Order: sequence, then structure tokens, then C-alpha cells
Amino acid sequence: MRKINYFLGVFVLAVQFSFAQSSQTLNLMPVPSNITVNQGKLRIDSNFNLAITGNVDERLYKATTRFLRRLDEQTILWFVQDQISKADNSPKAVLQIHVQRPGLVKLKEDESYQLNIDKDHIKISATTDIGAMYALETLLQLLEADENGFYFPQVSIKDNPRFAWRGLMIDVVRHWIPYEVIIRNIDAMLGVKMNVLHLHLTDDQGFRVESKVHPLLHEKGSNGKYLTQAQLKDIVKYAADRGIRVVPEFDMPGHASTWFPGYPEYASAPGPYQIETKYSHFEPAPTMDPTNEKLYPFIDAFIAEMASTFPDEYIHIGGDENRGAQWDANPKIQEFKKTHNLTDNMALQTYFNGRLQKILAKYNRKMMGWDEILEPGISKDIMIHSWRGKNSLNEAAKKGYPVIISSGFYVDLLRTAEDYYLNEPLAESDDLTPSQLANVYGGESAMWAEIVSAETIDSRTWPFTAAIAERLWSPREVRDVKDMYRRLDVVSTKLEYLGLTHNKNYEVMLKRLTNGADIPALKTFVDAVEPMKELSRRKQGITYYTRTPLTMVVDAARPDSKVAREFSWMVDDFVQNPNKELANKIKSQYKIWIANHAKLKETMKVAPAIREIEPVSENLAKLSATGVKLVDYIMLKSSNKLTAKSKMTFDEHDKREDEMRFMVKPKGNVEIVMLINATKKLLANTID
Amino acid sequence: MRKINYFLGVFVLAVQFSFAQSSQTLNLMPVPSNITVNQGKLRIDSNFNLAITGNVDERLYKATTRFLRRLDEQTILWFVQDQISKADNSPKAVLQIHVQRPGLVKLKEDESYQLNIDKDHIKISATTDIGAMYALETLLQLLEADENGFYFPQVSIKDNPRFAWRGLMIDVVRHWIPYEVIIRNIDAMLGVKMNVLHLHLTDDQGFRVESKVHPLLHEKGSNGKYLTQAQLKDIVKYAADRGIRVVPEFDMPGHASTWFPGYPEYASAPGPYQIETKYSHFEPAPTMDPTNEKLYPFIDAFIAEMASTFPDEYIHIGGDENRGAQWDANPKIQEFKKTHNLTDNMALQTYFNGRLQKILAKYNRKMMGWDEILEPGISKDIMIHSWRGKNSLNEAAKKGYPVIISSGFYVDLLRTAEDYYLNEPLAESDDLTPSQLANVYGGESAMWAEIVSAETIDSRTWPFTAAIAERLWSPREVRDVKDMYRRLDVVSTKLEYLGLTHNKNYEVMLKRLTNGADIPALKTFVDAVEPMKELSRRKQGITYYTRTPLTMVVDAARPDSKVAREFSWMVDDFVQNPNKELANKIKSQYKIWIANHAKLKETMKVAPAIREIEPVSENLAKLSATGVKLVDYIMLKSSNKLTAKSKMTFDEHDKREDEMRFMVKPKGNVEIVMLINATKKLLANTID
Repeated sequence: MRKINYFLGVFVLAVQFSFAQSSQTLNLMPVPSNITVNQGKLRIDSNFNLAITGNVDERLYKATTRFLRRLDEQTILWFVQDQISKADNSPKAVLQIHVQRPGLVKLKEDESYQLNIDKDHIKISATTDIGAMYALETLLQLLEADENGFYFPQVSIKDNPRFAWRGLMIDVVRHWIPYEVIIRNIDAMLGVKMNVLHLHLTDDQGFRVESKVHPLLHEKGSNGKYLTQAQLKDIVKYAADRGIRVVPEFDMPGHASTWFPGYPEYASAPGPYQIETKYSHFEPAPTMDPTNEKLYPFIDAFIAEMASTFPDEYIHIGGDENRGAQWDANPKIQEFKKTHNLTDNMALQTYFNGRLQKILAKYNRKMMGWDEILEPGISKDIMIHSWRGKNSLNEAAKKGYPVIISSGFYVDLLRTAEDYYLNEPLAESDDLTPSQLANVYGGESAMWAEIVSAETIDSRTWPFTAAIAERLWSPREVRDVKDMYRRLDVVSTKLEYLGLTHNKNYEVMLKRLTNGADIPALKTFVDAVEPMKELSRRKQGITYYTRTPLTMVVDAARPDSKVAREFSWMVDDFVQNPNKELANKIKSQYKIWIANHAKLKETMKVAPAIREIEPVSENLAKLSATGVKLVDYIMLKSSNKLTAKSKMTFDEHDKREDEMRFMVKPKGNVEIVMLINATKKLLANTID
Repeated sequence: MRKINYFLGVFVLAVQFSFAQSSQTLNLMPVPSNITVNQGKLRIDSNFNLAITGNVDERLYKATTRFLRRLDEQTILWFVQDQISKADNSPKAVLQIHVQRPGLVKLKEDESYQLNIDKDHIKISATTDIGAMYALETLLQLLEADENGFYFPQVSIKDNPRFAWRGLMIDVVRHWIPYEVIIRNIDAMLGVKMNVLHLHLTDDQGFRVESKVHPLLHEKGSNGKYLTQAQLKDIVKYAADRGIRVVPEFDMPGHASTWFPGYPEYASAPGPYQIETKYSHFEPAPTMDPTNEKLYPFIDAFIAEMASTFPDEYIHIGGDENRGAQWDANPKIQEFKKTHNLTDNMALQTYFNGRLQKILAKYNRKMMGWDEILEPGISKDIMIHSWRGKNSLNEAAKKGYPVIISSGFYVDLLRTAEDYYLNEPLAESDDLTPSQLANVYGGESAMWAEIVSAETIDSRTWPFTAAIAERLWSPREVRDVKDMYRRLDVVSTKLEYLGLTHNKNYEVMLKRLTNGADIPALKTFVDAVEPMKELSRRKQGITYYTRTPLTMVVDAARPDSKVAREFSWMVDDFVQNPNKELANKIKSQYKIWIANHAKLKETMKVAPAIREIEPVSENLAKLSATGVKLVDYIMLKSSNKLTAKSKMTFDEHDKREDEMRFMVKPKGNVEIVMLINATKKLLANTID
């Protein structure tokens, strides 16, 4: 029996140690806070069944029924047990679930659970059914098989999240993200034990929520693409059935263009207004007029309606990126500032926020906003959403504000899973006191939708959000990157069983790009490349509109290329220990890329949509040709067979380095940076 | 310039001629009734734009906007034109659309269009915007590319459907088929010019529609899985925006188990009742009591509600498979039959249908039902839905009833696309008069959901329904099977751009089956096999329940295996003309299957869920070994190199035939019949 205990909570050892071993993390993501893996297996067959005792309601019966069907779908054992109900309470059942009470879908609810598997039985006990639902997700991740069939390893797990707020924000505005995408993301969230769905519902490009009290909001602000009240209520119910809160965001007073096509009287300039089709910062950006007393009853009626749709205690009011250009240009507003002693626009926004907060309080709602709202004078019970860097997290926590972080968790920026994974919210240097630490509630993966569509959004959100989920759930010291990637592969596949499309839309997109031609050459190429990261794609001198097609090679390309990453790891191993086996593997991969260029050019003849990436394919072939030579060179060098004649000169070395520097330049918004860096490592190992 | 004209309407030449040449059918499905393909291409670039003139409404602006975005997604030309509105009426636009009036979403609306492409312009003209929407689908199918970029071929098309009723029925009951699946099927339907979505909403296994007047119907009859009123209204709107009618079906008086958990008083026996979890014909099957006068106001209130949800003039009342066992066992009902002079149960059902029809008429609705309702005494204005064979179609048409056909179009039976495609509704021997022919309104692809889930339903419905769509749209003489398959491949890929999952769920399912192991060996196997056809899977002595997992190899396997079909065609060509090239191709495919068996056994070690198909994999390997020998033998024979010693004896021949007969037996509900038949053809060609 091997046993590892982790320190719970945020007071962890500053010394980082690599505890992650696959024998202890298994295929679990997020890794539990405490796990003991024993010898032995509990085998299951068609008699597998479950029983529930304690105080539960319909939610857990539905959740256990779903669990049973999912397990049966993976094992095809044809379980006899059907819909679970209160009649299912036999003490002989294989899986025994005991729950003390139905959990509240509310911040800081008890989410802990215990899961014990011995040779005959599985026991789950939890304070709330939400904890029990998490235990069931863990159980599904534990399923394994050998030559004798399916089994669960005997384990003992005591699990509890590190942070209470583990969210995913989906921007449904910039591109329209419909109901069914949200539904499948909720299933995926439960799969990795996330508990807050934050919906960014209004912005300059769309007012994506139906308002019955102010119908011109969605009618004139959405081009018909909005979530109906009925859909929103379904979403809230669907999420609550999975222990997930829904926090709606209505961005005010900026990012507000789409409030005004229907109601221009509440803007700070006369209008008329229309739905924005671009993403740049429009100047003067349409902004609410906080000096208009009629604005507040208007917002009041809207908030009253939304409070009846969204039961969560928090409402996110955005509050970001208001530059106040419309305010500056409006003499009436300038006059108001003077008479109210508001020294600058931030002070005016704080005034507005104060009024807003009173409206929210009227409906028993707490205010939440992006970190811009953290200004002198703002009340202490608002939740700060840190996005401009960790400083704002620190500042808020120190000033006594509850705070969550999305800085470093912007999955639309197409960074690597490793980047998100190692984005520790609490830096060791943070010198926060225990009570300040307690202000840090967690974080959210943030998916902004400027350059994603319903077709591509999953492939940017997942599986990366699973790595973020682990950062927010598991003990701080769980941070072995290679073990994370190993488990992420497993969880990525399983998430698709829940309906996500991050893998399965890939080939469809490649087929569309080849216009019906064969895709293997394109696939070999796209597998190896990376989409441009951060905001660089939008800084290529081309204006992106909401109508711009998101079906290019760069949209099909997945962030954090697995092929490029694993190739880089292989190169790392090789330069550490040059050997023939790795040399051959690396060379054969390079040769595939060399040969692929001609094949891809053939495909391009009938596929105009992919011609833009020809230079990158050519660079990949050239880089690979260099790579083959470098591998051969290192092999010669490591066996001391370099002759004076064959030895690389500094000039030759520098020339190659220059070539590679040139290859970094993306075309068609894709790049081969990981592979260039890997090849540079080879080059660096040619000289001593 | 080549020109072919087809006879329009149902009065076609009895002589079948193969007009389909890819030069004329291009990649179009359904093939237009009249097309002239000219030389020359109209090239498009980012300036491509469109204009609309005539009398149109918002629907066509939305449809043309969708068209523009889809075209841009395929070409990535970054069109400048954004949302289409009435301002888009420039006579200089590349695509000119002229429409006389908005079409009614109603049976027999004008759906014709003309599409002309010359070197500079595309002209669409249509009586209704529905015709124009079809023209746009045709235009998207015409898109091609060469080394100079994307273009449309210059064509002149005059198109008009053969039948007015071209439907897809989806059973959302037996397995719960949620909202989003229906939505994506609507998009696909427009893609192949279908115009009726028939939703089978109630049956023994679920009452899948929310009723506000009788809430216990869905509350006690659905396990929470039903379409809400809001969702149904969304579906109707979404369909109408695409020219598609929605015909709801509420099956009565049989197939009615789920009416009674909430309202047992309307059944013909006391109850209690529950949701059925099996599919067999329950005896006595829960059936409405037509002698209960209170039943009619109950139904009246329900129909009133549904008529406000579903605007179509038709309501389908099912009426099928009522065996009347509950009626026979109920003395009060027997007495009623006597006093009302109803000689048998069918007469009683006809009495019930008459009452029902009056209720429907009250809400201006026409009645439609499965062909069982065609009994003496039933009124002439009901639509008969023929399913038990073509005789009922004939009978109805001759008796003067309007009729549509689904017999031969049951896509859940997993037959081949060819079978569905050649299922001509009007046999040549049908001696129907012109006025009787006019009673035949069309047909429906029917997807019953006993053994499909939301995950698999698309892969059984599509692309097969596209072949059915062509049968119902195109001239009768369009029936070249190989050309159909060529175009079906193209349309199948394009249908996935619209969100269907018939191809993309395949690998996800294989991954689930291998429990995380590599899938290539499993894929090679499943690509080649066929799921058991017709109802045979449900006749293996195992009871299927609604809970039975539908994630087995047979569920992943696609009907009408492309690999097996194209292999069979290759064998056909080979036996016609034995030659070395084909011999090598056939043998190399056989050798892949021989080698695959060992690989698949390796996968099975960690994938218990696929072990059941081991015997079929073994048979495939054995069959392939035989196949290799037979190909070699035929090559020897064709070059007259057979010696007395090498010549196959009749005994050897018969032994091989016996072996193959044994291999036909399915395991795990999959079979290799197509490949056995192909190999038998080789065997048949060993003897003269």
C-alpha cells in the first residue's frame, strides 16, 4: 500500500515537489486532494447496481441514473438497474451512496466527498449530493480494463476543492454561441468538477438575452441571435442539476453599444446606434449616461427581470474598458461631474456603480465586475474579477475585497495547456495574510469569442479548461506538467463522450478546406503547426468583422499542437542522450514533413482556401531538411567521429540560425515556432 | 453545349434510360428536373455580392445572409457584404435574386426556381422565396475550384419538385432525441430540398411534448425528457424560416401508454400505468377508451393547445398497430360496439377516428394517419401515410385518398442507400389514372428510434435521407446508382458543415469502445462490416430496453459500408475482366484484413467491449485468405495456365461455399455479408 497525503487548503509548502506519479494520479483530473491507491481490483458485471441512503432529492436520482447509463455505455455490460429512485436503497448494492442533504447551488457550499473502493463494494459519502456527483465523476475516471474485463482499482479518496469558485466564462456575444453549445459545456464542466458558468451576455456586438420588459434590447440589438428567456431558464436548471451556478454578465456602462439601437436615449451621445461588427475600441465608444436619472429605473426593471431568470446571488456588471470618450464630449456630463465633485471619469463610473449596486441589492443580488471597478469609494462586498494581471488580484485581496482571477486563464489566447496549468493564482511572493488569502475565491477560464464560432469554440476551450479546473481544485503542489499532459489526453477523449466537439470537428474543417480533395497531407501539416497566439492574429493589418469566416487553416489548427510538443520532448531527450533509436525517430518525422510539402501542393491545386499557408509548409520542409542534417551531425559528434572537414563552422551555425529566425514568420496566421525551437536545440548542440 | 430535358411531373417515360452522367448531374443532389451545362466559368472573389428584388420579407434576407456566410466559409474570400437587407438591391450585384412573393409554408406551395449562370452574373428567379432558397442550395452545391480559384460552372437550371410532400419523420420518443438534434436535421433537410419535418412525439416509451392544459402527460409520461412548448415553437419557427412544415404526430388510440400514468381514466382498463421500457407489442396494450365520452373533451383541449403550437394544416394521429386487446377484455366496450353496430375493433377505431376528425376540424386541422386508418367509413379528406407496403399506397390513391409513402423509406432498418434510392413510389405496373396519381403527394424518410440515440441517429438518417430526397424531388428516370453514390459522398461531407454528426461521431464511438487504446485496427474492421439489417438485431433472443447502451460495435458500424461496397464493385469489375492491376488491389485489401485480425486481438486485451466481435474478425481473416487464393486462381484460369493438378474440383468448390455460408452468421450484431457475397462471386468464377 502506498500512501501520499497532501496538505489541504492554500497553506502549502513553499517547496515545490513533484508528487505526481501515474500510480497515484491514475487517470484522474482534477487530482483529488488525498488519494491512497491499494492493490486489488473491484470487477464489475451486469449486476453492478447502486443504492442511495440519506436525505436526497430528485437531483441525485437523475444524476445517478445518468452515471449508470454512462458507465454502461463504456462497458456495454447491460446493467439491469434502470431509472434510480428512492426505492433503490438496498444495502447489498455494489455502489453505496450516502448523502446528508441536498446541496445548495451557492458559493461556498460543501463539495467534499469520500470514495472508497474495496474488493466488493464502492462507498461514496458526502455532506451534499453535489459532493456525491463529483465522486461519481471520479469513479467514471477510475474505470479500467484488463484481459479479464472492466474493473475499478481499490482506492481510498478524500477530496475537497482548493477554491470555491471554479468557473468557465463563455462570451456568447462576439460570435453567437447557441444554446446547445452551452448545454454541452455544462456537462463537460461537471466532468472536471467546475461549478460556475459565467455567461457574457451583452456587448457591443450583440445583446444576446431576451428581455420582455425592454424588448427592443434583443430585437434591435441581436440580429435575431439571442438566448430566449425559456432557454436561459433551461440552462439555469440544467446547470443546477449538475451543481453549477450560472452568473450572468451585463456589461455596463461601456461595451454597451447594443443597448442603444433600441434605446438611444440612455447613451451619452444622441446616436443613432447600431450593432458593432468590428472588435476594435470604437472612439467614442457608446457608453451609458450615468447622469440621466431615467437610466436607473430602466436598468432597475431589466435587473428585476434578470433576477427572476438567474437565481444566483451574483450578477456581473462588467465595468471594463470604459474610456469615457462620450462622457468627455458631453458638456452636461462634464457639468454633472463638477457639481457632484467627481474628479475624473473613474469617479463618475464609481458613482454609477454605486447606483447600480443599490439596484442589485434591491433584488438581493451582489455585484461583481472586472477589476476596473476596484476604485476608491466602491463598496467592500463586491466581487472583483481580476483580468489585467495578478496585481489586481493581490490588491483586491489586500484591500479586503472578495476576488477571483481570470488573468492567465484566457483560453481564447491559444496558449499551451502548460501555461494555463502553471498559472498559480497565489504567487509565493504574495505575502498575503490568512484573512487576505481567504478573499481569493478562485478563478475562471475565460473564452472570449472574437475569433471563435460555434464550430471552433470547443477546440479552444477544451481540453485546456480541464487543466485550469485542476489548478483550481487540486492542491497547489500538483504541478507535474508531463503527468498533466498524460491525463489531459485521456480526459480530452472522454469529454467528447459528453458531446463536446473539440476533436471531432477537426476533420470536418479540414474537409471543407480541401474542397472535397483528400485531407491526409493537410492533416499532417495542420497537426504540426500552431495558430498564432495571444492577440497577434488580430494585429496583422486586416480588420476582423463578426462576419469574417472562421474556417481557415488557423481556425482548424489546434492550440498547443500535440505533435509539435511531443516532437520537442523527443528532441529534448535526444540532446540529453544522443542515441540511434531517437535519431531515427526524429529523422523519420522530419522526413514525413519534407515529403509532405509536395503532397500538400498537389492538394492546393483544387483547394484555393489553403494556398495561403504554402510558405509555412515550405519552411517546415526546409526546417526538416536542416533538422535531419543536425541529427546526423550530433550523432557523429557524440561518437567522436567529426573530422576537421565535417565540423560545422561558426559561420555555418549562424547561417542556419538566421534561416530559422526567418522561418518564424507566420503566414495564414499559422506558425511553426515549437518545431523551430526544437530544431534550434539541435543546432545549439552542434557546438560546444 | 449539351442539353438534356427531362419530362416533368409523374407522367414519365416508362422506358428507363440512364441519363445520369457526371457532366450533367455535377455534384447536385437532388438532380434538378432540367439542367443545361455550358462551357465556361463564373469566377468569384471578395467582391461577390447579391441583390434581391421583388416582393420579399425578412425570411429571404436571413436566408441570403446565411448563404453568403456559408459560401464565404467554404471559399475564405472575406466577402465585404454583411447582413442582407432591402437596401441590397443593386442591379450591379453578381447574384441577382428576383422573387414574386413570400411563399406559404403549406402543402403544394410553388417551390420552383430558375438559376442561370453566365460569365458575369448569376440570376435566380422564383415565384416564392422558398424556390429562391432552393436555388441557393443548388448554387452552393455548384461551387468548384481549380488552380485559378473558386468558380461556378455556367449552367441553366429550371427546377421543380416531382412530389409536393418530401418529408423526414423523426421518432423522438423511443430514445430521447433532443432539441438540438432536430435543429441540425432541419438545416440538413433544406440542404437536400425537403419540406416536411414529421415529429413522432408520443408513444408507449414517452410523452415528449409539454402540455400546459394536461401537465401530467409530460410530467408523468416522460422522465423529464420532453420538448417544451418554447422549444417546439422555436422548432416550428426555425423550420418555417427554411420553408419546412412541421407535422406533429400524437399516436392514438394505441401506442398510448404514456397518456395514462397521469390520466389512467382514459384507458380501456383500470391501470395503473407506467412508461414502457421495452419495445415489444405489449398485450394487452394500453389503449384509449373510445366509449368514454369524457375522453373527447380531454383530447379537444389537448388538440386546441397543439394547434396553437403547430400551425400546419395537418395533424398526424398515428392510428397504427392497435390490436384492441384491452377493448376485447372490457365488457363495457363490447356492449358499446353492439349498441352502435360496430362489427369489429377496426370499426370501433374508425368511430374513434371520426370523433377525432371532428375535433381536428374545429381547429381547422386535417387528419393524417398511418395506413391502418384506411377503413370503410373514414372520411375522404384524410391523408393516408402508407407504411405496410405499396399496396396501401395504391389502394388509397385508387379510393381517392391523398396519400404519402414511407414503406421502403425506413432508414432505421439500415438498408443500403441504393435500396432507398430505387424505392420508386409509383410502380410502372400501377395502372393509376391521372387523377389517382394526383392523390400521391410524396413520401417521408422514417427514422424510428428504438435502437438509435442522439449520438447515433444522424449516422442512420444521413446521408441515406439525401438519396430519398432525390427520389422525391428529381424526375423518375434519375436512377443511376453509381452516379448517386458518387454524389452522395460529396453531399455527405457537405451536410456535416451544417452540423450533422453522421461521420464525426464515428471515431469518438470507436475510442469509447477501445477504452483508450489505439483505434486503427478496430477502424479497419468496423469500416468493413455491416450492422445487422431490418429488425434482425432485435430478434436475437435478447430484450432491448430503452436503457440498453447503444455504444456497441454495431452502433458505431455504418449501414451500407463504403469499403465493402467499393470492394464489391472492384470484384465485379475483376470477374468481368480479370487483370493484374485489379488482382493486386483486391489481394492487398484482403491482406489488410488478414493482418488486421491479430492487431484487433491485441486491442481486445484492454477493450472488453469489443470482444464480442472476435469471431467476425476471425471469419473476415479466413474469408480473405480464401479470397486471395481465388484471385490467384482466376488469374491463372484467365491466362489458361491451370493445370490438371491445380484445377479446383467441385468438392473443393463446394467446401469453400459451405465455409462461406457459415461465415454469414453475425456476432455482436455485425456481419460481413457484402464481402462474403463478393468473395462468392470470385468463387463462382472459378468454374465454367
